[in-house]
Amino acid sequence: MTKFVPENAIRILSADAVEKAKSGHPGFPLGAAPIIYELFARHLRHNPKNPDWFGRDRFVLSAGHGSAMLYAALHLFGYEDVTIEQLKAFRQLGSLTPGHPEYGHTKGVDATTGPLGAGLGMAVGMAMAEAHLAKIFNKPGLPLVDHYTFTLCGDGCLMEGISSEAMSLAGTLGLSKLIVLYDSNRISIEGSTDLAFTEDVMKRFEAFGFRTIEVADGTDTEEIGRAIVMAKSDEKRPSFIKINTHIGYGVPAKQDSASAHGEPLGEENVRILRENLGWAWDEAFYVPPEIYDHYHESAEKGGKANADWDALKNSYAAAEPDAFALFERYSARGLPEGAAAFLSETAVQEKADATRSVSGRILNAVKEDMPWLIGGSADLAPSNKTALTEAGDFSKLTPEGRNIHFGVRELGMGAIALGLCLHGGLIPYVSTFLVFSDYLKPMIRLAALMKLPILYIFTHDSIGVGEDGPTHEPVEQLAMLRSIPGVQVFRPADANETRAAYYSALTSGVPSVFALSRQNLPPIGGDVKDAMKGGYILSLEAGESPDVILMASGSEVSVCLDAKKLLAEKGLDARVVSMPSMEVFERQPAAYRGDVLPPSVTKRVAVEAASRQPWGRYVGLDGDFVTMDGFGASAPAPALFERFGFTAENVAAKALALFS
Amino acid sequence: MTKFVPENAIRILSADAVEKAKSGHPGFPLGAAPIIYELFARHLRHNPKNPDWFGRDRFVLSAGHGSAMLYAALHLFGYEDVTIEQLKAFRQLGSLTPGHPEYGHTKGVDATTGPLGAGLGMAVGMAMAEAHLAKIFNKPGLPLVDHYTFTLCGDGCLMEGISSEAMSLAGTLGLSKLIVLYDSNRISIEGSTDLAFTEDVMKRFEAFGFRTIEVADGTDTEEIGRAIVMAKSDEKRPSFIKINTHIGYGVPAKQDSASAHGEPLGEENVRILRENLGWAWDEAFYVPPEIYDHYHESAEKGGKANADWDALKNSYAAAEPDAFALFERYSARGLPEGAAAFLSETAVQEKADATRSVSGRILNAVKEDMPWLIGGSADLAPSNKTALTEAGDFSKLTPEGRNIHFGVRELGMGAIALGLCLHGGLIPYVSTFLVFSDYLKPMIRLAALMKLPILYIFTHDSIGVGEDGPTHEPVEQLAMLRSIPGVQVFRPADANETRAAYYSALTSGVPSVFALSRQNLPPIGGDVKDAMKGGYILSLEAGESPDVILMASGSEVSVCLDAKKLLAEKGLDARVVSMPSMEVFERQPAAYRGDVLPPSVTKRVAVEAASRQPWGRYVGLDGDFVTMDGFGASAPAPALFERFGFTAENVAAKALALFS
Repeated sequence: MTKFVPENAIRILSADAVEKAKSGHPGFPLGAAPIIYELFARHLRHNPKNPDWFGRDRFVLSAGHGSAMLYAALHLFGYEDVTIEQLKAFRQLGSLTPGHPEYGHTKGVDATTGPLGAGLGMAVGMAMAEAHLAKIFNKPGLPLVDHYTFTLCGDGCLMEGISSEAMSLAGTLGLSKLIVLYDSNRISIEGSTDLAFTEDVMKRFEAFGFRTIEVADGTDTEEIGRAIVMAKSDEKRPSFIKINTHIGYGVPAKQDSASAHGEPLGEENVRILRENLGWAWDEAFYVPPEIYDHYHESAEKGGKANADWDALKNSYAAAEPDAFALFERYSARGLPEGAAAFLSETAVQEKADATRSVSGRILNAVKEDMPWLIGGSADLAPSNKTALTEAGDFSKLTPEGRNIHFGVRELGMGAIALGLCLHGGLIPYVSTFLVFSDYLKPMIRLAALMKLPILYIFTHDSIGVGEDGPTHEPVEQLAMLRSIPGVQVFRPADANETRAAYYSALTSGVPSVFALSRQNLPPIGGDVKDAMKGGYILSLEAGESPDVILMASGSEVSVCLDAKKLLAEKGLDARVVSMPSMEVFERQPAAYRGDVLPPSVTKRVAVEAASRQPWGRYVGLDGDFVTMDGFGASAPAPALFERFGFTAENVAAKALALFS
Repeated sequence: MTKFVPENAIRILSADAVEKAKSGHPGFPLGAAPIIYELFARHLRHNPKNPDWFGRDRFVLSAGHGSAMLYAALHLFGYEDVTIEQLKAFRQLGSLTPGHPEYGHTKGVDATTGPLGAGLGMAVGMAMAEAHLAKIFNKPGLPLVDHYTFTLCGDGCLMEGISSEAMSLAGTLGLSKLIVLYDSNRISIEGSTDLAFTEDVMKRFEAFGFRTIEVADGTDTEEIGRAIVMAKSDEKRPSFIKINTHIGYGVPAKQDSASAHGEPLGEENVRILRENLGWAWDEAFYVPPEIYDHYHESAEKGGKANADWDALKNSYAAAEPDAFALFERYSARGLPEGAAAFLSETAVQEKADATRSVSGRILNAVKEDMPWLIGGSADLAPSNKTALTEAGDFSKLTPEGRNIHFGVRELGMGAIALGLCLHGGLIPYVSTFLVFSDYLKPMIRLAALMKLPILYIFTHDSIGVGEDGPTHEPVEQLAMLRSIPGVQVFRPADANETRAAYYSALTSGVPSVFALSRQNLPPIGGDVKDAMKGGYILSLEAGESPDVILMASGSEVSVCLDAKKLLAEKGLDARVVSMPSMEVFERQPAAYRGDVLPPSVTKRVAVEAASRQPWGRYVGLDGDFVTMDGFGASAPAPALFERFGFTAENVAAKALALFS
């Protein structure tokens, strides 16, 4: 009689799902099944009947291509979304079992993963959120916030630089409830990891301040279990568990070979797998009731833990009603009335001001009303104006601090923001120079995919950067950011537009990007309510319909207002349209958009110190651009605006030329 | 009498330059001046009179904000570009001393730096180029290629993940002639590095396989010198030298403080600096002749080394004429006649084929003609089709191999490609999925700034990815890439357009991006010469002028050809324009562009399985789009093209609707 190896059910279902889809990654599941089995059965606090339970441990499958394994585990442990039919529909249109795990799509999936390494950063963010909320809310005997974050990664995740960025910070912050499980199978797509990855990974993690543990035999669930228990026992350091596995385990033709990674095993190999595993049932997707029973029994612990936590929550609510009410407000992450009123009120702006400074004042104005707002910069806080005064620094000893020092780690910061937001209870903001949004791009994309209301505060938004020169001057970044589906980009022209942008960002439920000026900008005299429409008529023409429309955002709006005056001297009647957010404008009714940009007026000039690309749709075939279509230069900012033609004179000349 | 401290001249000139510009970073130069002095005076093989000399050691100032220090050193050692007038014009419009060092702008600057960490990757690429060419060209007693690569970085560079990506590979490849100098001043912009960076950096580099050396006192040039000598002596491993310094050294109000980093010291502090350094001359920018003499004397060694290398080259040319002729061809990096003829020839494509496969065949077809073509993938070579058959793998023991295994390190790969290209003698190509071009974006930008003719081969260019789902399906990446100034983006529709793209890429002298299909595409029957114009009429209308223009790239061109037929049935005369490269099309004469897209025809439909943003300028106010403006999904590719409307029926319907 073969020994009962419950994780074989995960292996078989994974292999069957990939085989039926004729697409997917069977190798990782065959090797890592014991890890996920041991974790889900004995260590992870989770309740399949209530996947979103706040008190649960979090799990991020950083190696997202192992999705079949995750779905198989969710199915076996009793998550209702993932039926056997869904496993059969793996990677098919409309299924709950897409090619890579998708948060918000499948219950039980804590994070969208696939781009390697991103999950590691998300796990760090989750563990930070837990540490922060625990310090704020836990009371003696009432540990309302008290859970672990586990992440499972492969060699690929650890080759990615984000693994160093995120884990170095995790070590600095002493996130002892973060446990990284490393499936070390020594194979990547191009072959042995010896080709490109001979580093001593354990030593790297020691350097980061992790406790490191090695599991010699990744098929030994007991050894894996002992390692996890050991990791949990460390109350000072995060843990890194290296588990030696075999990709394609159980299929001799594939085991320890790159070909196991990303293609179906083939019918014959699936048969051989069943044989080698001693799996007695030939029918694809068949799991005998006794195995289901085994899984469901182990899942019952989770239901019990959930009930215990509910009881704890009730005790907490009774003993600490104010704190509990606050906890519920954190969980709701709403926009409080006071902050809403402040942001939607049109204020008189007396003098020129940088929108980055306005942003800093807004953050500080709403910070007490919105204590769940937390964030920081990739080591540019003094320039980004993102520090929350008197809100403390997030450190190992003071995780309640709301100012996060991310270090010079833009990509890692982006991933950590995802985790902070995914965890629940917090709205994160992150910040750097706009030009370095390039580094965060992959993570903003994931925020958009997951619909996470993160704030990206990018300052130094044009050649207004000045002397730092072309490496630090954004040109094409607005085009890049505006092209990401589901992201709102704001480039406000003054304080009122900045308020409107914050209002939209904090009520939208999607990621929002702010492009803010380094230099002072004069007030343009608009109305916050208009600005909330994304694009609006700032300065109406004198006659019935304009001769020409000047469209701009941010620092170029006031240039257009001046150009309008010059054009009036030439007898041309210009309309000035301020466009702080194209995405918000596009959401307005067609009639409104037509009023702002009448189709009959085809003489249009778009003015923005950035790539012209996003403006093409508004400029049409008859208009023109005053834009930055090459790189900037190093010089004082006023010299650069002059040099590159962002002057009223040049804008007026371009508009005039449309009539010649 | 004060001890003669030659590096003080670098400190003083740096401080004066920043002070005069009222902008810049004085803190780093004050701390790191002994490092650059010691390196340039005694270890770096360089010739100020011939900055581009191939046989020189390379130097990358990864901490690019230390530009004032680099310019001061270049000036003192006698580089002709950097006069004292240029130092006085630091950070001013048109000067040779911009805010961050710019390759191609200032002689003596080996790499454009500023975005932290990028220089580390570039240095790895340079060291790889050296190892590769040395193995190929050196003969007994004739070490034609034999130089070191030095890079100087700070804490910020090492917080960036790219430092791990690049250095892990450097360790794997045993690049013993790479020497990393780490200015450890424990201060970053937000304050002490303890805030975010408490890792044991030396241990991390040991984990990567580096020799590590620590210099306790960074003001001790002799100790720095001994460390460099020790590093050079290691013939197995790259070296990492940690040098403990003080930011803002010599200015008590600033030293060891974040405020030293990015703002001028102030007049009074510059006076105090002079006093504390024992610098006897009050006048700004004044350096006494005896100090110039000292610097110029040490630079004479470089002239001698250059002459020795020239002699060696002559001996080599005499003894190994064939090898030397080949070396000269490597250096010229031209497009040989055979390859040019092959690429510019219109071939009959018999059956449907994936453009990634065509690309793979092209690489292999030209590889013998162009042995200086070298590259690889971020662990996706089998999918990207980038392997050069029988060209060997680049490894520690076989650096002559042309297939580079970058590992799952897209950003690092991007930086390494810059270094491979900057070194001279090689044209690098790098590859991953198009969606992961996001990760390389910052490095493609640097390639564009430096005008480096690197090939970016991005496959799996749309929802044609299929089952892997939205995390792996590019949508907005084409918009992102097309918005980068100075980059050519190609999305060919079939084999002939792919050839044309390669031809343009290999003759342009600028970075080129290829977006290639995973799935098979039918031949569209165009001409290579037409395709080389970037946009061209593929299928002319029957009448004098078209009723409607259908514009597309890549996989959507054939959809438009089919839609044209459907429209003909409805009595509409459509023109199909294939647009493999907007950037190349924009370089054509206005008359040609007007012939292809007559302004009088305003009914236009752009069809591309990607963000509509780049098409706005061609579609105008009266046209429409069949584009991907949301994320994709996980399903077989044909189901996705159907689901998202990339069918002849839908395109025809959109065109028809323009007439209603």
